[in-house]
Amino acid sequence: MPAKRTTQHPDTLKLRRVAIDTYRENVAYLHRECVIYRAEGFQALSKIEISANGNTVLAVLNVVDDASIVTPDELGLSEQAFTQMGVAQGSLVKVAHAEPPRSMDAVRRKITGERLTAEDFHAITQDIASNRYSKMEMAAFLVASGQTGLDREEILHLTHAMLESGDRLNWHEALVADKHCIGGIPGNRTSMLVVPIVAAHGMLIPKTSSRAITSPAGTADTMEVLARVDLPPEALHSIVRSQRGCLAWGGTARLAPVDDVLISVERPLGIDSQGQLVASILAKKMAAGSTHLLIDIPAGPSAKVRHMREALQLRKLFEFVGDRLGLHLEVIITDGRQPVGRGIGPVLEARDVMQVLENDPQAPADLRQKALRLAGRVLEFDPDIRGGFGYAIARDILDSGRALAKMNAIIEAQGRQTTQPVPGHLTYEVTSEQDGVITGIDNFLLARLARMAGAPMDKGAGVDLFKKLGDPVEKGEALYRVHAEFNADFNFAHALTQERGSGYTVGTAEGVPQFYGEL
Amino acid sequence: MPAKRTTQHPDTLKLRRVAIDTYRENVAYLHRECVIYRAEGFQALSKIEISANGNTVLAVLNVVDDASIVTPDELGLSEQAFTQMGVAQGSLVKVAHAEPPRSMDAVRRKITGERLTAEDFHAITQDIASNRYSKMEMAAFLVASGQTGLDREEILHLTHAMLESGDRLNWHEALVADKHCIGGIPGNRTSMLVVPIVAAHGMLIPKTSSRAITSPAGTADTMEVLARVDLPPEALHSIVRSQRGCLAWGGTARLAPVDDVLISVERPLGIDSQGQLVASILAKKMAAGSTHLLIDIPAGPSAKVRHMREALQLRKLFEFVGDRLGLHLEVIITDGRQPVGRGIGPVLEARDVMQVLENDPQAPADLRQKALRLAGRVLEFDPDIRGGFGYAIARDILDSGRALAKMNAIIEAQGRQTTQPVPGHLTYEVTSEQDGVITGIDNFLLARLARMAGAPMDKGAGVDLFKKLGDPVEKGEALYRVHAEFNADFNFAHALTQERGSGYTVGTAEGVPQFYGEL
Repeated sequence: MPAKRTTQHPDTLKLRRVAIDTYRENVAYLHRECVIYRAEGFQALSKIEISANGNTVLAVLNVVDDASIVTPDELGLSEQAFTQMGVAQGSLVKVAHAEPPRSMDAVRRKITGERLTAEDFHAITQDIASNRYSKMEMAAFLVASGQTGLDREEILHLTHAMLESGDRLNWHEALVADKHCIGGIPGNRTSMLVVPIVAAHGMLIPKTSSRAITSPAGTADTMEVLARVDLPPEALHSIVRSQRGCLAWGGTARLAPVDDVLISVERPLGIDSQGQLVASILAKKMAAGSTHLLIDIPAGPSAKVRHMREALQLRKLFEFVGDRLGLHLEVIITDGRQPVGRGIGPVLEARDVMQVLENDPQAPADLRQKALRLAGRVLEFDPDIRGGFGYAIARDILDSGRALAKMNAIIEAQGRQTTQPVPGHLTYEVTSEQDGVITGIDNFLLARLARMAGAPMDKGAGVDLFKKLGDPVEKGEALYRVHAEFNADFNFAHALTQERGSGYTVGTAEGVPQFYGEL
Repeated sequence: MPAKRTTQHPDTLKLRRVAIDTYRENVAYLHRECVIYRAEGFQALSKIEISANGNTVLAVLNVVDDASIVTPDELGLSEQAFTQMGVAQGSLVKVAHAEPPRSMDAVRRKITGERLTAEDFHAITQDIASNRYSKMEMAAFLVASGQTGLDREEILHLTHAMLESGDRLNWHEALVADKHCIGGIPGNRTSMLVVPIVAAHGMLIPKTSSRAITSPAGTADTMEVLARVDLPPEALHSIVRSQRGCLAWGGTARLAPVDDVLISVERPLGIDSQGQLVASILAKKMAAGSTHLLIDIPAGPSAKVRHMREALQLRKLFEFVGDRLGLHLEVIITDGRQPVGRGIGPVLEARDVMQVLENDPQAPADLRQKALRLAGRVLEFDPDIRGGFGYAIARDILDSGRALAKMNAIIEAQGRQTTQPVPGHLTYEVTSEQDGVITGIDNFLLARLARMAGAPMDKGAGVDLFKKLGDPVEKGEALYRVHAEFNADFNFAHALTQERGSGYTVGTAEGVPQFYGEL
């Protein structure tokens, strides 16, 4: 059709790695004076496509006025984008206007209230997996498919699509057990007790966990106080074969990677829809090769799930999707009225866990009790264990020291840490302003406080609780101690306490809220 | 409460301007090895608060591994953020975890389907105006308040809130006329004809326009071919007083600035809800001091509004909100089946406009006709003009050369351009593949093509149409010519033509779609 066309293609720029980590968003840097591509003409459209050697990367464009960052004949890429590009610095690259991802049409249909098909969800997760979505576009998808937006068939489609976005582990056994808590309760480190108990019984439980994203500690962060968690896939398999269990970080395997990307947008936005939650958890667990899964839903006034009716809705959703995925899935609704155990933050939580394993009389009773209940239910996945007998078996394994022995074996297999971090040396105590009985503890505020104090990055940072619900307290008596390792963090935590108070409420014994779930 | 506290505050970093333009999103750069603030601890939360001298700026955090960008004892800010901070380079700044904006609670309530109050909308626009929202958060707000999400009372609240986010012009006259098109039709430069006609009649019409964001030309871009549009407020007022009208860029005044911010997220996402559209336009026009407003809603198969029922819905919404704001508002539904005039792109559109003003026999008849209809309706805002007589008066002003004289006076007052840009010298023609009659022209594709060719940045880039709906065409005959100024743009445009075709459909005379609006 064209009557005239240039045959020469001098439209290339030299690739440069710009040492900026833009956290899960590709950014490209173009000098304002670039003569081939006029940066401003691209900018409002926000995304460009960079190609070299048949490889293509999409990135948000930033315009640079400093030739020491990029010169007019260079195209800079942020660290993650540079890695994705996969060619050397100085390679010649071409730039083009990026088409919006095709699947954004489906997102726009979702915004107008349409039901999406399995193919739509597949297209969306594939585009996200290929880094075609900006954070804005992901936010649009998450909000559009929020709280009231996905019906349960759509959640099933989304789960399938996320599962297909990555690899799947296969343990070549008929019963691969796992447990998962939906989160939101600080100190809730039951996995580090359930895994050694269940593995000591001989059941396969290859537990991979995440690091904390917006909480003060994930299981991987806490286990890392004791042992290495960042294991290559072959090492992980060999440990699981010899020990029947592990407590590793799941980040090395590409399990439902789209889930990680979506979470990186969902968490800072503070949106947390039931549909996304169910799809996220079940896709990860299916990808990890689980066949039998126990889901822990804590309910309480400052938990993710605040009412029993909401907990029941969520349970039905897990059951619906889990059944259709062919998972053997059980849901347990637990007491989420307050943090579990005493410590919040990796070192303090690891201390609680070890006290329980060592049958230390100081061990927090609630953590022990909850772990035994969960372990008991997981053990009952074994067809040879009679319904209701799991708890006693779990207690027997714990009391006899077999759980501790198994934990030590797992720690040795993963690689015991040579240094033992201690609680942070900068501390302050928060005291009660009146006499009475503890009637409320704000999970959210205490998690945030531990995070401000430096957890999970600083292993020793966190909060050590001295009082729990129902405990009597006197005016001036310490409620908890905050530990930090750095001055700035100490000040952040302290400022939060001054601004928002202790997070404890003190009243009379009658004021302690009841928990009405399974106990 | 604290038992121990450091008294010293050595937690400061040196401010550095990083010459990166991050396009309406504040970005802060912290070196990974920064000893005071551990960058990774902040990153997942995504936003930090930087303060100095009582000033506070919120920014998304990027982690830097290159000390030539920022050193470990520096805190870098992107250009816009640095300007907002308003202190010199090298000033000592402190960094803190940014609380999510308070009004995100309201956004989350909107996500769950709640109605928001006037106070909620006020809080949201205030937080956006103070740069407390990231692009992700704005995307969440826009999607949540999308298509089905805002009722008309909420749209009124949002309009009020956006209006209050900036300044308001006051022209101290009882009748301040304006016209506005909702957009989407390339070549639709009627304002440059309506303003001189109406001003020649003596009615006040101080028109401020935007530059194109995702279209190939805004009125400000096209007017800039002829005259300066970037005028300081005092100059603008003096021109309006002497000429009764102007055609200026509205960006110098802070009119509903939140609207500009939201548009910068809305456009790349391609979401365009009626509620946002109405609030955006009416807030801008109220802020510009208009008392009488004519809204042009083009309807057609590739226009923003595709069906008459949708156009009518939108008209009711404009009327509802406009009435409650005390605006005298009229809505006219126009033919949006194809581009208006012949040229698409600043130079080509300016040529069409001047041909109409000069009563050139070559002038595009549809542009002339549409401009006269709109000008006639605006003139009827004058109580002394009898209903239905506006068109004839407008035609008289145009035919007599008074409109041309007024346009020249406005151009001289604003500052006539000394050089006259010409259509881009790199060209190709797109030809018909068959004999027949033009039955369809894709507005969206032609706008995109002109944009790929370099419009609006390169004034001479664009598309010159030779055929319009209903025109007979022979196989091999040219449909239009594409103009570019740079090789890369020429190639982008050409690639689009090859991939997506001409954007024209050719059939028989019976296949030309009917328009059933007011004509």
